[in-house]
Amino acid sequence: MNGAETLVKTLLKSDVDVCFANPGTSEMHFVAALDQHPEMRCILCLFEGGATGAADGYFRMKQEVAATLLHLGPGLGNGIANLHNAGKARSGVVNIVGDHADYHLKYDSPLRGDLDGISGAISHWTCRAENAASVAGDGAAAVQAARSGGGQIATLVLPANTAWDEANDPAEPIACTQLERPSNAQIVSAARALCEPGTVLFVGQRALHGSLSQLAGQIAAKSGCELMADFLVPRIERGSGGVDLTRLKYPIGENVALMRHVQHMVLCGANRPVAFFAYPNKPGTPEPDDCRITELCPPDMDYGWTLQAIADELGVGPADRPALVSLDLPGVPTGNLTLEKTGAALAALLPENAIVVDESVTSSEPLLAATDTARRQNWLHVTGGAIGFGLPCATGAALACPDQKVVCLTGDGSAMYTLQSLWTMARENLDVVTIVFANRGYQILHDELANVGVKQAGRNAARMFDVEDPTLDWVSLAKGHGVAATRVTDMDEFVTALRKGLATTDPYLIEVIC
Amino acid sequence: MNGAETLVKTLLKSDVDVCFANPGTSEMHFVAALDQHPEMRCILCLFEGGATGAADGYFRMKQEVAATLLHLGPGLGNGIANLHNAGKARSGVVNIVGDHADYHLKYDSPLRGDLDGISGAISHWTCRAENAASVAGDGAAAVQAARSGGGQIATLVLPANTAWDEANDPAEPIACTQLERPSNAQIVSAARALCEPGTVLFVGQRALHGSLSQLAGQIAAKSGCELMADFLVPRIERGSGGVDLTRLKYPIGENVALMRHVQHMVLCGANRPVAFFAYPNKPGTPEPDDCRITELCPPDMDYGWTLQAIADELGVGPADRPALVSLDLPGVPTGNLTLEKTGAALAALLPENAIVVDESVTSSEPLLAATDTARRQNWLHVTGGAIGFGLPCATGAALACPDQKVVCLTGDGSAMYTLQSLWTMARENLDVVTIVFANRGYQILHDELANVGVKQAGRNAARMFDVEDPTLDWVSLAKGHGVAATRVTDMDEFVTALRKGLATTDPYLIEVIC
Repeated sequence: MNGAETLVKTLLKSDVDVCFANPGTSEMHFVAALDQHPEMRCILCLFEGGATGAADGYFRMKQEVAATLLHLGPGLGNGIANLHNAGKARSGVVNIVGDHADYHLKYDSPLRGDLDGISGAISHWTCRAENAASVAGDGAAAVQAARSGGGQIATLVLPANTAWDEANDPAEPIACTQLERPSNAQIVSAARALCEPGTVLFVGQRALHGSLSQLAGQIAAKSGCELMADFLVPRIERGSGGVDLTRLKYPIGENVALMRHVQHMVLCGANRPVAFFAYPNKPGTPEPDDCRITELCPPDMDYGWTLQAIADELGVGPADRPALVSLDLPGVPTGNLTLEKTGAALAALLPENAIVVDESVTSSEPLLAATDTARRQNWLHVTGGAIGFGLPCATGAALACPDQKVVCLTGDGSAMYTLQSLWTMARENLDVVTIVFANRGYQILHDELANVGVKQAGRNAARMFDVEDPTLDWVSLAKGHGVAATRVTDMDEFVTALRKGLATTDPYLIEVIC
Repeated sequence: MNGAETLVKTLLKSDVDVCFANPGTSEMHFVAALDQHPEMRCILCLFEGGATGAADGYFRMKQEVAATLLHLGPGLGNGIANLHNAGKARSGVVNIVGDHADYHLKYDSPLRGDLDGISGAISHWTCRAENAASVAGDGAAAVQAARSGGGQIATLVLPANTAWDEANDPAEPIACTQLERPSNAQIVSAARALCEPGTVLFVGQRALHGSLSQLAGQIAAKSGCELMADFLVPRIERGSGGVDLTRLKYPIGENVALMRHVQHMVLCGANRPVAFFAYPNKPGTPEPDDCRITELCPPDMDYGWTLQAIADELGVGPADRPALVSLDLPGVPTGNLTLEKTGAALAALLPENAIVVDESVTSSEPLLAATDTARRQNWLHVTGGAIGFGLPCATGAALACPDQKVVCLTGDGSAMYTLQSLWTMARENLDVVTIVFANRGYQILHDELANVGVKQAGRNAARMFDVEDPTLDWVSLAKGHGVAATRVTDMDEFVTALRKGLATTDPYLIEVIC
């Protein structure tokens, strides 16, 4: 058994059985080993950002680590933007990156580069396999690292000779060390604080969906505190039956207003909220100057245990019902197309338990507002702000949850970064409706240029912000990747297209001219 | 005048007047400054790999540095693969990468990452502007760095506040320090060696085109040495009137055969040739074990001066004519389509001084062989082996040389990495014919899997190597980006399409089913 075979067997033993792959020559022995193990599902992505973004989406929905297979420094480089998003989401990902045979690294061959440097800049954990015998143990350690701290980016560099040389047995899974927890005194103090007026329980991560979000809602009901969450969260359960909470927005000015009354913010499973960017003469954080901040339990500590401990301290019981969102569906709008009406149509038609991947950027706000009281959805945001996230994340989410409808909301500018994921959706027959909001440009940059005081964009700015002359034709782009598509310009066309996309289980794309 | 304005003015003073851009919010003040300077040509790329690859192609053809404008760590990350290729080509590129305002970096905002780490892993030179007053000088230093050593990757990180704060004047250009040169004794010794039997003058970089290549040919004529060059060179003048030399190939086995007789290799403007990858039981370098290697002048030293010094030492005069390739055009083939015949059609029809960007990978060899004696061409290779090079490089080359026809040869697998460049070709009306050799997969990986001893690809390997089910439709993909296209399946269709593409000055794409 060679090193590559021990690695594949080790990954499978550790319950990693999906690999988003974009291999090259240096990964051939690993590919040959995968070929012996059809129980490892290999998903080809035609660009590495598609692979890393899919692993992110997969983890967010399934809470399970997927592997990626990438080709040397440039392959990992192409995956950086979505690894950045995955890292900010605390998604666990194991990157297997092939490298030259170690004895070949002394030569300046074309693909030789600073792979370790690239990995170090984007991964929480990097290991270069020393020899074939160490590969299995390194693989088990990589999975452990990816599962640690709630989820991390772990990169295993696999020199070609460590894959092809003879090795020993695969390695057993390595359990993660227990996450850190706040002290009992901190729990008691936090529970007391939550009962005081003006206190917010600021939650994130898995406390925004499923049983932990319900528990957070119970704590709020019992203590009287306000429940709040950040804007770009990895996954949040919204709509009917979801816990009612205050969500921050993108503009720092709006967040300052939302937090004006807050006297004390207790963070649990979340970092403190900050402005997306700094702007001249605007604050970097939204809370009032005299607001107290208690960093009770960061996202890499055991915030699930912490919430339960607070609930216990408060004496939360079944009678303490969380405030839940009630179903309130709008009618299906007709007439001319607006983002607000598009949101209403989504709200009216989204099926129960849909997964909404949102990279619609400037189009997002009205879509979010309209779907607040729709059927229960899981909403996935671009946590790291690196665009090119939507289509890959939708791909991974659909693979993770084949029984749930995935709707990918994306701007045209952002979708262009990783449009190759459309092909993977077609190849794997994924149940994804992609809605491209084609405002023909980077609308956010027009807004931001105005923010810096430029009243009118000149030729250079317009040429950099507007994707016009020619316009993109998303119906043809989708067709080129094997995905059926249609273009809509009014609400009747949009509703017809959306009904069609929701009815089929094949991927479908709707280009919304807005 | 703010920092951003001083930077734009400094770049223009340093003769950097093209910027391949993919900006974001942190670059808004730089964009506003560009807007005041229409003499800086801003070319929008819809993906950062398109911007960095275009800067590479621009430098290769014009020997002038272009700027890129990128958005924080993820933006630079997306540009890594083509910066890797550019670095291996020794193309000079100045990356301007916006970052958060320095006082905002203490927060874990979504886009905060290890930008300096990413830059350090891919750039020869990185500088983070300290304040607005330093930006102009940093910009001049970045251009100097990009021009040093024959061409380097220089990255200037521009925190938003250093762009928007008030600054002073723009900076004057900084001259590059003189390149190192070999000693006179080394020149004398090398000249003597070249006159001995079995000696090869192994040249690279600018010694493969223009007057320096003619000089190298004269040295070979005078000394009797053999002239050789590597396979993946940045730019080589081929065809009629080009200097006749021995080119290495991709497979190490063929290169061992090509160098079997070589007793002494004198390197000038080139690194020693090495195998692209290591393989079990194959050599890492092509020359015989007892071959002497003289590293006379690496590519980052003054190899132009060195060649002239050798010529002077040898007494090369006008009578020493280099061996030149003679024109020998094939007929235009008909009938069924093969790569060999496609190459013959190219050879028959390529116009004088065409620029051929070659990322056709496994399709390349017959195309190269067929065009050996065609009209004079400049041929640009994927120096770093990172695919996704072809379309961006063709974009930059076409912008650099608007009066020359550009032909981009690409595989379908490789073209998918950076297909967004098609839109930039359409936007800028670039004179590029793109020929996609659609073998529906990564044919090279089938070959490499066989190299590691796997006789038959199983399901996992086939699913990772074959881009089928569905096939890509390049005519639709091109149309989606605004580029006219056609699909051909026999030679008559190919020749008709090629004639059409060569006749128009708009971008055109031919999908060759092979």
